[in-house]
Amino acid sequence: MLEDYPVTITLPVLWGDQDAFGHVNNTACIRWFESVRVRYLELLGGGQLHSPTKVGPILARVACNYRRQLNYPDEVTIGARVERIGNSSFTMQHAVWSAAQQAIATDGESVVVAFDYTTQKPVRIPADLRAGIAQLEGRDFPS
Amino acid sequence: MLEDYPVTITLPVLWGDQDAFGHVNNTACIRWFESVRVRYLELLGGGQLHSPTKVGPILARVACNYRRQLNYPDEVTIGARVERIGNSSFTMQHAVWSAAQQAIATDGESVVVAFDYTTQKPVRIPADLRAGIAQLEGRDFPS
Amino acid sequence: MLEDYPVTITLPVLWGDQDAFGHVNNTACIRWFESVRVRYLELLGGGQLHSPTKVGPILARVACNYRRQLNYPDEVTIGARVERIGNSSFTMQHAVWSAAQQAIATDGESVVVAFDYTTQKPVRIPADLRAGIAQLEGRDFPS
Amino acid sequence: MLEDYPVTITLPVLWGDQDAFGHVNNTACIRWFESVRVRYLELLGGGQLHSPTKVGPILARVACNYRRQLNYPDEVTIGARVERIGNSSFTMQHAVWSAAQQAIATDGESVVVAFDYTTQKPVRIPADLRAGIAQLEGRDFPS
Repeated sequence: MLEDYPVTITLPVLWGDQDAFGHVNNTACIRWFESVRVRYLELLGGGQLHSPTKVGPILARVACNYRRQLNYPDEVTIGARVERIGNSSFTMQHAVWSAAQQAIATDGESVVVAFDYTTQKPVRIPADLRAGIAQLEGRDFPS
Repeated sequence: MLEDYPVTITLPVLWGDQDAFGHVNNTACIRWFESVRVRYLELLGGGQLHSPTKVGPILARVACNYRRQLNYPDEVTIGARVERIGNSSFTMQHAVWSAAQQAIATDGESVVVAFDYTTQKPVRIPADLRAGIAQLEGRDFPS
Repeated sequence: MLEDYPVTITLPVLWGDQDAFGHVNNTACIRWFESVRVRYLELLGGGQLHSPTKVGPILARVACNYRRQLNYPDEVTIGARVERIGNSSFTMQHAVWSAAQQAIATDGESVVVAFDYTTQKPVRIPADLRAGIAQLEGRDFPS
Repeated sequence: MLEDYPVTITLPVLWGDQDAFGHVNNTACIRWFESVRVRYLELLGGGQLHSPTKVGPILARVACNYRRQLNYPDEVTIGARVERIGNSSFTMQHAVWSAAQQAIATDGESVVVAFDYTTQKPVRIPADLRAGIAQLEGRDFPS
């Protein structure tokens, strides 16, 4: 299922996540991606990413593939794993597992940039952040 | 600006669209894409897409590139244009214009599938839908 | 803590529930009330409330008192109990318990009407629904 | 219609505001109230409410009466007027006018507290804020 994902969170589908089509609205999945992305960054030590250096993460891109309709009630497990570390950004892969359907309902990716909020420019990913990702993922990343 | 987009809607940025970073949250943009996508489908004659044939649109994929931070107050114009029509799906390109910044803040795409909600399977895009898109876009699409 | 509430649900506070003030936005609490309200109705046997008689619940009023600011991360337990059953409506009391603060953060109420979606008019609350509420609450309600 | 409301904003109903019942979800109305409340505070000179004194508005209560179901497409005008100014809080009355139905769909109220975010305590409403409200409302408020 999501055993390839070092970071997961489990959330209930809310009745209010559904839209007029009677299934879970597409924006709910983007919120789930955000929630697991934040959790991943916390595990890296969010403090490294934020003040006092005013360098923090910023989302540069999100994409989601909707493979199965989701309905209330259900419980979803959302996974995050880093697949690529570049100079100033890294790419996180996501998957959403439906407990009711026992299947991956959606998958997608986030691209996160290390951003200097003072200069409003991307910066090089700090070495300790790179090391933290490698440790969480249990593998080295080509630099 | 968005003169290449045959369908646009203009919406105010709401204070509540902002998150704890003090800028517009990434999910707001996905909701804007949905709003202009629905508007585009309405102009095609949404009735063709829905009952009584129980064939309707379903979102297969959405992606968004965040190029500039957005803040409240602002007004955004969101564009939609169809770039590709396949056998059972078509791809819509989106761009979001910020009035305050006089620049494209985000862009992205939606992939919409013609879906039979009874059989739960994709179906071939109806000929009149294909013709409607061609008319809105003012050009032919290779079949 | 919420031992007076026969129905409770527990949900994590999401990072995205926060707004530009850096605390949980007021709308999140209204969504929590909805989620526990739906759960309460399910326990009553939602089927009685819906088709084939086309009589279902409709929300007539919601109110929320914000007593403490909530922040991410936290976990909230939301309670629902029926305090009054009228002719065609009943009033549900809500409270939200913050695990991080070990205190009630918000409370409020929902007024739910038994509504005939065909005639678009309120109807008398069915006897078995009234009995179901009495059973869940463990007490009689004056009729 | 809303001629008694000195501050109004007009917003489109979004397709995504609808829930699985096929009408506008109750949380959408709470967001509309927030949007007009923020607009009202801006007109008072939001700067008075915020830094450098670290005194700002905080929402103590919101309530909404749902009188008519709303559907997409529609356009709503949301009004705000202050009805009461107390020692450290004031009460704003809201109404939502549906263009499609030419009727008030919902109404309600917000209670806003002048709050010192440093001491985490309510403070007396500043005299110039009180004067600003009186000017916007075109009447005196008993002190």
